[in-house]
Amino acid sequence: MNSPANTTELPVILTGDRPTGPLHLGHFIGSLRNRVSYQQTARQFVMLADAQALTDNMDDVAKVHRNVIEVALDYLAVGIDPAQSTIFIQSQVPELTELTFYYLNLVTVARLERNPTVKEEIRLRGFERDIPAGFLTYPASQAADITAFKARLVPVGEDQIPMIEQTNEIVRRFNRIAGRPVLVEAEARVPEIGRLPGVDGKAKMSKSLGNTINLGATPDEIRSQVKRVYTDPLHLRVADPGHLEGNVAFLYLDAFDTDKAALEEMKAHYVRGGLADSLVKARLETVLQALLAPIRERRQHYEQDRAQVLQMLREGTEKAREVAARTTDDVRAALGLKYF
Amino acid sequence: MNSPANTTELPVILTGDRPTGPLHLGHFIGSLRNRVSYQQTARQFVMLADAQALTDNMDDVAKVHRNVIEVALDYLAVGIDPAQSTIFIQSQVPELTELTFYYLNLVTVARLERNPTVKEEIRLRGFERDIPAGFLTYPASQAADITAFKARLVPVGEDQIPMIEQTNEIVRRFNRIAGRPVLVEAEARVPEIGRLPGVDGKAKMSKSLGNTINLGATPDEIRSQVKRVYTDPLHLRVADPGHLEGNVAFLYLDAFDTDKAALEEMKAHYVRGGLADSLVKARLETVLQALLAPIRERRQHYEQDRAQVLQMLREGTEKAREVAARTTDDVRAALGLKYF
Repeated sequence: MNSPANTTELPVILTGDRPTGPLHLGHFIGSLRNRVSYQQTARQFVMLADAQALTDNMDDVAKVHRNVIEVALDYLAVGIDPAQSTIFIQSQVPELTELTFYYLNLVTVARLERNPTVKEEIRLRGFERDIPAGFLTYPASQAADITAFKARLVPVGEDQIPMIEQTNEIVRRFNRIAGRPVLVEAEARVPEIGRLPGVDGKAKMSKSLGNTINLGATPDEIRSQVKRVYTDPLHLRVADPGHLEGNVAFLYLDAFDTDKAALEEMKAHYVRGGLADSLVKARLETVLQALLAPIRERRQHYEQDRAQVLQMLREGTEKAREVAARTTDDVRAALGLKYF
Repeated sequence: MNSPANTTELPVILTGDRPTGPLHLGHFIGSLRNRVSYQQTARQFVMLADAQALTDNMDDVAKVHRNVIEVALDYLAVGIDPAQSTIFIQSQVPELTELTFYYLNLVTVARLERNPTVKEEIRLRGFERDIPAGFLTYPASQAADITAFKARLVPVGEDQIPMIEQTNEIVRRFNRIAGRPVLVEAEARVPEIGRLPGVDGKAKMSKSLGNTINLGATPDEIRSQVKRVYTDPLHLRVADPGHLEGNVAFLYLDAFDTDKAALEEMKAHYVRGGLADSLVKARLETVLQALLAPIRERRQHYEQDRAQVLQMLREGTEKAREVAARTTDDVRAALGLKYF
């Protein structure tokens, strides 16, 4: 209805982030970069999942509020274009809670407890039996987010694939009840480059571990984090042969250095021996400073005009809400919940 | 804002029914009769809980839709007056799902599983591990219903008291997060006359057991159900002494016969011996025909003008939605979910 005719045939993508902290290189490589290219080939909805972030942040609701704007700044800084992608705030589309409510009837407690993603997240957060109900049931909420926009593609990490399966189970159960295909099944799209380790070599970049390089990092911050980058602990003297496995400096260069020929040469030299870690890190710093400088500049530009950013979010949210409202209306009709 | 000044100081009552079948004498004695008197002394919201009914009726959504109107007819028939009480349809107040969504973060799965009402309902329905998530979490939904209207009084059966306790736990946790009393604690109000047994003597009147006398019953239906009323199985000959315990005819007379002196005399005669069951049942039939005739007539009157009933429901729902929207707005603000 409201979408321009030329975009309605493009596949719909839903993606987004829990706004609990600034985005970093891990987000850039794992999702943000892809979103910039998806916006040419798909109708992309980018969700600031503040409501979902609350499921385990009820003790610090101000943090979630604050980070909605910070993450929006990160989006704009990397080149997600509100004219091409619909950036919206989850909590401001209450239709999503309505869909969640009905989907909760389509999934059993046992099925939620078996969901490997939920199981792992519960373990990571140390919830055990004190799981907030909203946390156990968040697959229903995620199904609401995905189906509200009739998304066909959902970019997720490998570990999130069970969530998409659960969404599709709900879709099929709902469509059986409706007797017609009201909702659309989604497909997980796992990015080629997986998770980037932290600068310290730990599996995951995490704000609390202090092992990230944020998109808004200053040149000094970038420099000091690159110095900390984990390399080869066996590479004690420059002349020694070095190892590439688990070597974060080279993992980052693989991800960000566009001069692949020079990189291959550098790797060969490192393995052979005679290449100092400091030179590898110098190259990495050059690459990252070059990558992040324009992102930081754009971020600073938008930071100075928060009113404009809020206006952009308001418009994106209105657009998202129109789409979600149409789906919710279909869902209500299928459940016999139309009276007037 | 929209409430007349003279009603704002009255305590708010929330009450309602799951629209899964026609209402019967059990509803009349346990709640409907009280609602007619509450509407003089309280600001009463009467909810047609269609969304809650779906938690275990996803296989028959049409039944729920149909019964919303049927139950509304029952309300009007017994004298619940839309000018005094706000009668509304739960699903048409989507703010309730939004509140539910946030309250799910304030209650643990373990706490829901310990809720005695939920435990018993799960047992009754034979759900065991295949509990729909929406069923386990319905205390959060009920908390949403109660708090949305800032209800201070909630008329419930004895078995529902744990639900009100759970609501109040959520209220307290929420208010702690908010740092101010956004939500209001509620008090269970248990009616003096508890549950009425079925005509067959079974503990509960239930449509599926066929042991009810519906409010819209025809004179013939009343007559044939009274014939089935369970009395004293030891009272074989008229001359035998009769027993009152578990004697449904006398339980019903206790509930509905307004001539208490005559009833006490009849009881004494029955216990002494010499009073035939048929005479007791004749009295019961007279009482019930007199009680139900005006209810049936009013019901038939409204049945002929369903458009008017729908209009009444539409207006009540709009009014309820305004109140719920104000609470939801407060809840969003307390959670930092206001951006624009």
